Amino acid sequence: MTTSNSPQPHLDLKAPPPLPAGGLRVMALGGLGEIGRNMAVLEFDGQLLIIDCGVLFPEAEQPGVDLILPDFGVIEHRMDDVVAVVLTHGHEDHIGAVPYLLRLRADIPLVGSRFTLALVKAKLREHRIDPVLVEVAAGDDHLAGGFHCEFVSVNHSIPDALAVAVHTPAGTLVHTGDFKMDQLPLDGVLTDLGAFARLGVAGIDLLLSDSTNAEVPGFVTSERSIGPVLDSVFERASQRLIVSSFASHVHRIQQVLDCAVKHGRKVALVGRSMVRNMGVAQDLGLLRVAPGLMVKLDEATAMPPEQVVLVSTGSQGEPLSALGRMARGDHHQVTIEAGDTIILASSLVPGNETAVYKVINGLARLGATVVHKETARVHVSGHAPAGELRTLLNVAKPRYLMPVHGEWRHLRAHAALAEETGMGRDRILLAEDGVVVDLVDGRASIVGSVPIGNVYVDGLNVGDVGEESLQARRILGDEGFVALTVVIEPSTRTIVRPVHVSTRGFSDDPAAFTEAVALVEAELKRALAADDQVDAHRLSQVIRRTVGKWVSDTYRRRPMIIPTVLEV
Amino acid sequence: MTTSNSPQPHLDLKAPPPLPAGGLRVMALGGLGEIGRNMAVLEFDGQLLIIDCGVLFPEAEQPGVDLILPDFGVIEHRMDDVVAVVLTHGHEDHIGAVPYLLRLRADIPLVGSRFTLALVKAKLREHRIDPVLVEVAAGDDHLAGGFHCEFVSVNHSIPDALAVAVHTPAGTLVHTGDFKMDQLPLDGVLTDLGAFARLGVAGIDLLLSDSTNAEVPGFVTSERSIGPVLDSVFERASQRLIVSSFASHVHRIQQVLDCAVKHGRKVALVGRSMVRNMGVAQDLGLLRVAPGLMVKLDEATAMPPEQVVLVSTGSQGEPLSALGRMARGDHHQVTIEAGDTIILASSLVPGNETAVYKVINGLARLGATVVHKETARVHVSGHAPAGELRTLLNVAKPRYLMPVHGEWRHLRAHAALAEETGMGRDRILLAEDGVVVDLVDGRASIVGSVPIGNVYVDGLNVGDVGEESLQARRILGDEGFVALTVVIEPSTRTIVRPVHVSTRGFSDDPAAFTEAVALVEAELKRALAADDQVDAHRLSQVIRRTVGKWVSDTYRRRPMIIPTVLEV
Repeated sequence: MTTSNSPQPHLDLKAPPPLPAGGLRVMALGGLGEIGRNMAVLEFDGQLLIIDCGVLFPEAEQPGVDLILPDFGVIEHRMDDVVAVVLTHGHEDHIGAVPYLLRLRADIPLVGSRFTLALVKAKLREHRIDPVLVEVAAGDDHLAGGFHCEFVSVNHSIPDALAVAVHTPAGTLVHTGDFKMDQLPLDGVLTDLGAFARLGVAGIDLLLSDSTNAEVPGFVTSERSIGPVLDSVFERASQRLIVSSFASHVHRIQQVLDCAVKHGRKVALVGRSMVRNMGVAQDLGLLRVAPGLMVKLDEATAMPPEQVVLVSTGSQGEPLSALGRMARGDHHQVTIEAGDTIILASSLVPGNETAVYKVINGLARLGATVVHKETARVHVSGHAPAGELRTLLNVAKPRYLMPVHGEWRHLRAHAALAEETGMGRDRILLAEDGVVVDLVDGRASIVGSVPIGNVYVDGLNVGDVGEESLQARRILGDEGFVALTVVIEPSTRTIVRPVHVSTRGFSDDPAAFTEAVALVEAELKRALAADDQVDAHRLSQVIRRTVGKWVSDTYRRRPMIIPTVLEV
Repeated sequence: MTTSNSPQPHLDLKAPPPLPAGGLRVMALGGLGEIGRNMAVLEFDGQLLIIDCGVLFPEAEQPGVDLILPDFGVIEHRMDDVVAVVLTHGHEDHIGAVPYLLRLRADIPLVGSRFTLALVKAKLREHRIDPVLVEVAAGDDHLAGGFHCEFVSVNHSIPDALAVAVHTPAGTLVHTGDFKMDQLPLDGVLTDLGAFARLGVAGIDLLLSDSTNAEVPGFVTSERSIGPVLDSVFERASQRLIVSSFASHVHRIQQVLDCAVKHGRKVALVGRSMVRNMGVAQDLGLLRVAPGLMVKLDEATAMPPEQVVLVSTGSQGEPLSALGRMARGDHHQVTIEAGDTIILASSLVPGNETAVYKVINGLARLGATVVHKETARVHVSGHAPAGELRTLLNVAKPRYLMPVHGEWRHLRAHAALAEETGMGRDRILLAEDGVVVDLVDGRASIVGSVPIGNVYVDGLNVGDVGEESLQARRILGDEGFVALTVVIEPSTRTIVRPVHVSTRGFSDDPAAFTEAVALVEAELKRALAADDQVDAHRLSQVIRRTVGKWVSDTYRRRPMIIPTVLEV
């Protein structure tokens, strides 16, 4: 697997020294300094334990990329040392890269809760991988190699989420996974503060804790508060209702189904992942579906609009999703009518704002009423805000904190919260991907860093698209290119035929480069006359320089210039 | 000027009929269905009055574009009919396209307040245009051709903003411009509800009103509330302070200067537009600067950090701005130190979220504390939310409302507010760019629409980049290209030299297409053998088809394929 290394200008850390005997090493291959591709690697006594293995979704600066993986480079030669992958919950940013890790070694045991494993299994089936699964539940102990794992229930925006305490002779590390502290969760499963307190009394040496909402003051509003808001929207809706949410948010969908029952509407699921995940959730008893409630989409579209609710993917504005198509008026089964009501019962993941607003505007243009988190409380976050993070720190009383799961702004805000609760600054380890933290003799510290790159998935391939290709894409995407091809007869040093120009993305004017071509031909002739043999490289430079100057002077633009000199 | 027309799938409107004698026609060339490039054209008795002429900033779907202009196509043959351009205030989305309009006719009178005209004049100087300026103030009357204009003061996030009432024999149209109803404005200039009430009593036939914040409930918090928040941040800051805001937000900058005086810090302005605009504001007495307060940037960087505050552009995450460079650690004069405090005293314009968070994360990574609108109340919006929009409707009592200045979600939300206040649905005209509204015999209605395209500025040129180029840029930017060039000898129908491959943005692997080239050569030879003469077009198709299938099968990607067949 090829790795492209983005520079790490900061922290100026050297390669870490060897792990001292009896020490525990912790290193993130992803998820620190970014929201996504969460993956922590623990090392003790020559063995590796991995916690989570997720994907990161690309930004505009990574055009054309499908997914970004954690950089396995540091451990790929040590796959036989990996004793297990613990999966805290089933979100893509925690399980999405598992298929790519298992390409390196297929029989690494995957340890997780029932719902988490069901989701990862479905994903691996698509990759034709048959994994080794170890199901655990809150309260369970599991020995993975020399790592004694203990699982703690946490409350998040997906059922069956777990925190994990890892006991080793070096000390105890606790990883919260993603959590919040909804005190009225729909399924009654609370973040188990009692367990965190017990672990704290026994001694938590190092706490890795979710930083996502560290900048947000206060405490979460209960997921349960969404039900009445949905209910009031259902109450007012006189035509078709469409609710869009994350395909793994079982509790949110449950509340939609409950509203549907109450208001006498049938439900059709729209979107492949929605259908698949809700099937899994229903099978495991996590989603309660009233008999006769569900209909197929084609049945739903044939029914009077006031008798159905569609539950759809596309809450993040994905243009190819069902909702994205509806907003553009080109969904093959569902046509939005004036008076329809659409609810986006979801967060707005940073980076997706423009896409989401585009969908909302498209729906609004078609006459629909769109209810979203900025106009009604139809979403609550799945991550603990500042008040809850402080609470956890006060309950768990870790000796050291390593904020995880966040961009730098989140990690730093989390550190500030920890300082408020009385932790010394030297007890807070602000690390980013690749930074190595060792816990030795009860003392945790940053000891170095290893280079971590972005590993891009594009189509079928992993790693062949790197920073070089992305840089070219950015230039091409902004300015297009002009390719100029000249054929030279070497013996006579003459241009055999007129310079051929091919340009895309530069201008709608087909004659944009006519003037430049004449200049290029004159410069080439001069160069050919001056030299006593054909130097294709030098001629290429002549083309590049001549066109570059001309296009900059004429247009103030910088398209990519591709000179080709062919000798025949 | 070339115009590219994006399709308008909706509303299915035909071209408008001729304007009936005595009627007033209203048409937006921009600003309806988008936030930006605001421009309304009024027609009465053969004359045209333009209200605002702004630019729209491009989205990710318009890569490489610098600016988007209103589409002047509908009026460019009628420039002699234009009696004036009324500019409601000096923001770019209201004045930014004036230089491009004046290219069509330079002596169109520009009517606006003192500060607005000063900003537009500075802008036009850069375009080497010397405009005809007509200064007006709130309460003034001005006759522009047959349009009797009356100006009303409004409160906005820039000083000296105006609404305009346009009286014609067909009736009275009122355009609010951008406004909010801060009841404690820093400069004491209120939105003049009394004037709106008087106009309402006399009869407002058609109100065009700012929809930007129609989805936001309630009333604005006063700009004045920001002072104490800034003060508390200044109080806590022990090192350098940097405040970033819009370069036209004089009142915000005033509060920063006041804090600087109170806390004994000197101020340096950073960024060209900040320096220019604050100079203009100071000259006009809109910005009060204590003697000796200002220092130059190089003086500031030489002073102890706790004695200075930098006031900088870059609040929208612009990578080339001063703050953007500081966040990456490559500003040539300012180096961020751990413990510095940065305040982003600004909104987060939709579409800029990723860029702004990137700057915040960069600063956080360097150890700075970043205060922004999500962590402290260091920004209030400049636009009236729902409560104030209802208030205006109740005060002005227009017969008809045309929501303007908004995306579809805002326009529709504004319409819903109007319905709440008791306006009949038939009194609310939901239009988008190009939709034509006629006011005839006291009755306003949508009578048709004209095609409106996006006119792109890219470098020095206007209009040569259109949808065709943008579509190519999107493909190139996502997938790169592969260009294959083959030289054929026509008489022998042979390939003179191996197929030449040039690829950028597809893969970092230089040998990515080796296998494809062999396939192409085989297919070309087959085609050449089968035909009795060389058909370059057919050979190009062979290349495109062969490579397209191969790359799709091998990579599941779709780079742009550029075949070139040269005969020598």
